[in-house]
Amino acid sequence: MSSSAVLGKQEAGLIIDEARRERGLTWDRLAEIIEQPPVWTVAALLGMHPVPEPVAGLVRAELGLDDDVVKALTRQPVRAATTDISTDPTIYRFHELIGVYGPALKALIHEEFGDGIMSAINCSISVDRGTHPDGDRVKVTIDGKFLPYAWNASED
Amino acid sequence: MSSSAVLGKQEAGLIIDEARRERGLTWDRLAEIIEQPPVWTVAALLGMHPVPEPVAGLVRAELGLDDDVVKALTRQPVRAATTDISTDPTIYRFHELIGVYGPALKALIHEEFGDGIMSAINCSISVDRGTHPDGDRVKVTIDGKFLPYAWNASED
Amino acid sequence: MSSSAVLGKQEAGLIIDEARRERGLTWDRLAEIIEQPPVWTVAALLGMHPVPEPVAGLVRAELGLDDDVVKALTRQPVRAATTDISTDPTIYRFHELIGVYGPALKALIHEEFGDGIMSAINCSISVDRGTHPDGDRVKVTIDGKFLPYAWNASED
Amino acid sequence: MSSSAVLGKQEAGLIIDEARRERGLTWDRLAEIIEQPPVWTVAALLGMHPVPEPVAGLVRAELGLDDDVVKALTRQPVRAATTDISTDPTIYRFHELIGVYGPALKALIHEEFGDGIMSAINCSISVDRGTHPDGDRVKVTIDGKFLPYAWNASED
Amino acid sequence: MSSSAVLGKQEAGLIIDEARRERGLTWDRLAEIIEQPPVWTVAALLGMHPVPEPVAGLVRAELGLDDDVVKALTRQPVRAATTDISTDPTIYRFHELIGVYGPALKALIHEEFGDGIMSAINCSISVDRGTHPDGDRVKVTIDGKFLPYAWNASED
Amino acid sequence: MSSSAVLGKQEAGLIIDEARRERGLTWDRLAEIIEQPPVWTVAALLGMHPVPEPVAGLVRAELGLDDDVVKALTRQPVRAATTDISTDPTIYRFHELIGVYGPALKALIHEEFGDGIMSAINCSISVDRGTHPDGDRVKVTIDGKFLPYAWNASED
Amino acid sequence: MSSSAVLGKQEAGLIIDEARRERGLTWDRLAEIIEQPPVWTVAALLGMHPVPEPVAGLVRAELGLDDDVVKALTRQPVRAATTDISTDPTIYRFHELIGVYGPALKALIHEEFGDGIMSAINCSISVDRGTHPDGDRVKVTIDGKFLPYAWNASED
Amino acid sequence: MSSSAVLGKQEAGLIIDEARRERGLTWDRLAEIIEQPPVWTVAALLGMHPVPEPVAGLVRAELGLDDDVVKALTRQPVRAATTDISTDPTIYRFHELIGVYGPALKALIHEEFGDGIMSAINCSISVDRGTHPDGDRVKVTIDGKFLPYAWNASED
Amino acid sequence: MSSSAVLGKQEAGLIIDEARRERGLTWDRLAEIIEQPPVWTVAALLGMHPVPEPVAGLVRAELGLDDDVVKALTRQPVRAATTDISTDPTIYRFHELIGVYGPALKALIHEEFGDGIMSAINCSISVDRGTHPDGDRVKVTIDGKFLPYAWNASED
Amino acid sequence: MSSSAVLGKQEAGLIIDEARRERGLTWDRLAEIIEQPPVWTVAALLGMHPVPEPVAGLVRAELGLDDDVVKALTRQPVRAATTDISTDPTIYRFHELIGVYGPALKALIHEEFGDGIMSAINCSISVDRGTHPDGDRVKVTIDGKFLPYAWNASED
Repeated sequence: MSSSAVLGKQEAGLIIDEARRERGLTWDRLAEIIEQPPVWTVAALLGMHPVPEPVAGLVRAELGLDDDVVKALTRQPVRAATTDISTDPTIYRFHELIGVYGPALKALIHEEFGDGIMSAINCSISVDRGTHPDGDRVKVTIDGKFLPYAWNASED
Repeated sequence: MSSSAVLGKQEAGLIIDEARRERGLTWDRLAEIIEQPPVWTVAALLGMHPVPEPVAGLVRAELGLDDDVVKALTRQPVRAATTDISTDPTIYRFHELIGVYGPALKALIHEEFGDGIMSAINCSISVDRGTHPDGDRVKVTIDGKFLPYAWNASED
Repeated sequence: MSSSAVLGKQEAGLIIDEARRERGLTWDRLAEIIEQPPVWTVAALLGMHPVPEPVAGLVRAELGLDDDVVKALTRQPVRAATTDISTDPTIYRFHELIGVYGPALKALIHEEFGDGIMSAINCSISVDRGTHPDGDRVKVTIDGKFLPYAWNASED
Repeated sequence: MSSSAVLGKQEAGLIIDEARRERGLTWDRLAEIIEQPPVWTVAALLGMHPVPEPVAGLVRAELGLDDDVVKALTRQPVRAATTDISTDPTIYRFHELIGVYGPALKALIHEEFGDGIMSAINCSISVDRGTHPDGDRVKVTIDGKFLPYAWNASED
Repeated sequence: MSSSAVLGKQEAGLIIDEARRERGLTWDRLAEIIEQPPVWTVAALLGMHPVPEPVAGLVRAELGLDDDVVKALTRQPVRAATTDISTDPTIYRFHELIGVYGPALKALIHEEFGDGIMSAINCSISVDRGTHPDGDRVKVTIDGKFLPYAWNASED
Repeated sequence: MSSSAVLGKQEAGLIIDEARRERGLTWDRLAEIIEQPPVWTVAALLGMHPVPEPVAGLVRAELGLDDDVVKALTRQPVRAATTDISTDPTIYRFHELIGVYGPALKALIHEEFGDGIMSAINCSISVDRGTHPDGDRVKVTIDGKFLPYAWNASED
Repeated sequence: MSSSAVLGKQEAGLIIDEARRERGLTWDRLAEIIEQPPVWTVAALLGMHPVPEPVAGLVRAELGLDDDVVKALTRQPVRAATTDISTDPTIYRFHELIGVYGPALKALIHEEFGDGIMSAINCSISVDRGTHPDGDRVKVTIDGKFLPYAWNASED
Repeated sequence: MSSSAVLGKQEAGLIIDEARRERGLTWDRLAEIIEQPPVWTVAALLGMHPVPEPVAGLVRAELGLDDDVVKALTRQPVRAATTDISTDPTIYRFHELIGVYGPALKALIHEEFGDGIMSAINCSISVDRGTHPDGDRVKVTIDGKFLPYAWNASED
Repeated sequence: MSSSAVLGKQEAGLIIDEARRERGLTWDRLAEIIEQPPVWTVAALLGMHPVPEPVAGLVRAELGLDDDVVKALTRQPVRAATTDISTDPTIYRFHELIGVYGPALKALIHEEFGDGIMSAINCSISVDRGTHPDGDRVKVTIDGKFLPYAWNASED
Repeated sequence: MSSSAVLGKQEAGLIIDEARRERGLTWDRLAEIIEQPPVWTVAALLGMHPVPEPVAGLVRAELGLDDDVVKALTRQPVRAATTDISTDPTIYRFHELIGVYGPALKALIHEEFGDGIMSAINCSISVDRGTHPDGDRVKVTIDGKFLPYAWNASED
């Protein structure tokens, strides 16, 4: 193994995004090609999920990627949130919503389900277009398993 | 006007929540009584929205609140996100989701709608129970107007 | 002088705002009464400027304030920006604009005026309503003296 | 697609600024050439907006840019505010103004328009020279659509 | 409902701890009395869990608590981690261990279980005394359900 | 000595992890080969411990590493926790547990052992699979020497 | 000793400042009365220095202070810089100057005096009015002993 | 147990310090009276250690403290470092020394003792006066047990 | 214009400082050569001011600089304070002085000049050697125009 | 002067440490060779002090360093504390000690010496091995000149 630098997953994500743009491929179309949900697809190709080898193979075939990009794709990520990105207006609005409505979501989840959380791991997200006389709308649906606080332990 | 301390909206929210608990009222039932959506109701009564006078009157009638609590309810809020609360596990999971999937949401919003944001102001949120063989699920739907970047100016 | 606590300017601001609400006075009307510009008036009464004694007298006459509130009004402020308030959506949008357009404003100020700044001290701000077919607009005009970097020193 | 590093939008902005300086082109003149407003032009060429292909073509023609610079120009930005830059005196004065006058702007916007915000997305900014016996002045006009808090949802 | 201040859960925790000390009750004994696991008991009585009414009744009977303390006990907590406490040497050592061994734990969890996390919600913790010739040891066992990343959605 | 850059321990860790993946070696198997405990092995090879020369020799033999990677392995580390990594969901859950249960762990350690800490230096950690009808569990055992606060000084 | 709260030095400073304002005493005049330099006087009376008993006696005689205020005056301070205050525009300008010219001051101090610092302990500061055709000027003179880096140790 | 506020250890420390000053007792003399080392004594009475009951009895006898102050003294502390205090010049110099010489101390400890740390728990500190022709010196001796990194586990 | 990286002003400053050292030129002598004040000279050549072309020509002539260094010199800077540098002891002492004496400077400026600030833009700084029986002293004189708060606006 | 990057002092420190390791030289031995105290030697060679030319010559002779490493050694440092390093357990223990005992050290220094500080500039540090039946100890002696607060000014 040579000591040359290892290509990071985020850097690989930039390369993939650029290759996609050059080929005129939308993310939606790329998701169809690799037969994965759109939000998962973008997150995974930008470096937030380990991409299974067969899926990575489909991506490589479509975009003509180098070996080190594919290796980066299949590597287990550190899903570290970069705080800088959180000030991008499109992303910040979601954080602002949690700031304003977080305590209300918490109260209603506890009231409906009891003490616990909505899982961020067993969870899917979708983005849809909604319509309204005042202009089209972004509908983001977050759908996560409820996990009750449970003081369980391994049996043996 | 006396110089006695002015009751804050968050402190008023704690008093309202306690009064609600004592009367055995759920937030959902309280939302029905004041004829407002549940997430809006909890957010507003905890101090994140100015409550219109007639609605505040309904709340007072139901919970028997003092004058200063009602005054706090109708006051325009500073919607300042307290960073401490963001580490509560039930709330943190939402921030984590934005950390992991934020760039993907951003990419798909831009692809579907063009450059712009989902409004956090013209926006509604609902919490529902979903079902699944592996356990019930929390479905949070965020539904905000798409706002395209537009370099407009006042006409005159 | 007794050692009782000294009323702070921000706490005094809350009392003034509440007294104003109770009397049904708008900020705009209050500014007219004390014959000061609206943005200056609100900023000063909320604690961000020392209010000259005669002006403070007019405010007291109109709102019926206690002595310690008036003393707080005329005191020189520490104009400390509270970082929490900067996440309020109405205020945050201005910070976001500086984040996005700050380097552009800087480049154009340097190009037009040379190396220097727009003064935040010799500066006035106004808020107006603008019209547009797509909906009314908020026009904020910031008008500050240009200060060129100058390596001057006292003469003597 | 080779795995060579992808040129970032901010780095591209530095290259563009340097090319502009070498040709003796002002930002104002460049804005005229590409027929865009000055503040938008500088912001976009420094990396804060995606530049439409035809506009990017005009920039390339004028400044003789490499392919990767043009690709960076047309890419969708992450509009992340770099906190370091906010201490530059020319930019900091704007943040200071929001710190001092933010609560007043908020109060007057709510009084005039109701609960809501001035949009930072449907918004334009201009910089002008004002005159005054005590010295010329920088006039910055921020003109954003008022967005009322509205609990709307998609129809279907 | 009077507008007197609502007693917070952490403040209630201090009162409970003091009452416990005065009666010479260990936490371990108190856990036995209320028939709950020790770590859960201490965490809950210090304010990190909502205490079920019957359990709160046992605590009150044992410690002779006022009504507002009991109300605080049964209230749903905001489980906000206070960053100050994290510098206490006894607590800091755990954070340091995660800093040093966190990436290793992550790698081994992924290797053994696949992509996912150890739940902090369906999780129990115990503290035991271990022995060793060089001195007694603290054994902390964290036992949480493995949650695989799963892109599930509600069925309907 | 040439002034070429010195390879860091974390960068060396990335190279080792990639070499391990290419050879299809699990961390567990690698730990067996070098006859060290698994958690220690991963931590050390990712850069958090100085690796004794003979052990580094075994790693090199197995993975075919360059000289500078081996030199990095045996170098004394700065064990600096990177705060970014702490937001990775798999690692964050541990920090969250300390946030929620830290005060309880502290109280029980003091009750059982007296005033002091669990050592993070004389300490071992293991990860095991536990079983439970609701799904397999991650068991993390932290086993550190108790260190009582002691006001000792050198004798001489 | 009763367990009533101990009056802090900063709170005492607010009381002193208010008493001074009520009597129409300038800081400069107060400094003359207690025969101390003006900057030292204001800093000390606002809580940043321990005030010697005789000096505190003069202050009490002049302002008619309660016992707990005098006790606070003579107490040794914790000279903790409150970060909030550093955003006050009048104070911030000094921090900005250090940000812009700090490296230059450092280079020139090293060039003139060698490796070391200007003491902030053996140091005096004065504020004077300077004149200039373009307007009066604030002259702040900081005069601190140069301390060379010296690797000395106690003799014995 | 009444729900009145529990007196904190730091607040108790302020009361003790004030009582000590009123009686004209030095910390050194107080340490002699309670037969404890000076640094330990001050730290403990200011709230950083639990004070054993007999020692607390001696302190009460000497200073005439109320019950709640004594209770606070004997309570187990949260030893949370307040970051504000760290900017006090007398304390900051120690942090600066660690900033400048920390890596050197680390290198020499590793060279002399191997991989590990100097314990901050089994550790004593003393302050002495040293002499030197250029002026008296503060000698702070930190004397902590060396703890080698050891991968031990409980036996059973 | 090639897309090669643009040399930053701070990096250029390092190159200039090194060239100056190699030629054995003091900053003071360099300031004489380019006929500028010493503090301005060092600040400008280290990257904090745009250097006018003729002055940059003198610097190049003296130090034999490459084109890209000269281009960097004449470029308009982002005067961003790097927080890391502020912990350098020589620079930190100035920040500490502002922390300790800032409120006093503010009070005296307001008393002497009224509400306003000392300009950090129309401002010069000098460093001189002072003498004293106890050792030589660093005298730093900051001389900035007083700017009164003034609510002016452009005339038209 | 070419515009190639200037080698930083910290990077030079890494190269020196590596060269030292390759030659099997301890820091202690290297300190003897260059006839400097050990802590000063390590700090200086890692980049925290300017190394006098003759001393740098001895280091070069011993370790065979390139020109740019030697130039970096003799350059005046920015002694900026990197906050990341402060979480290294060996270094962190010192910060923790200041957090726990800082207020006590401050109180005893004031009691013994009056108001002032222990200098971090006129200061030496040594590391020694102490013995104790429970295990060897690290003795760190910090020996700094006491500097009393003194309001002196230059004479002239």
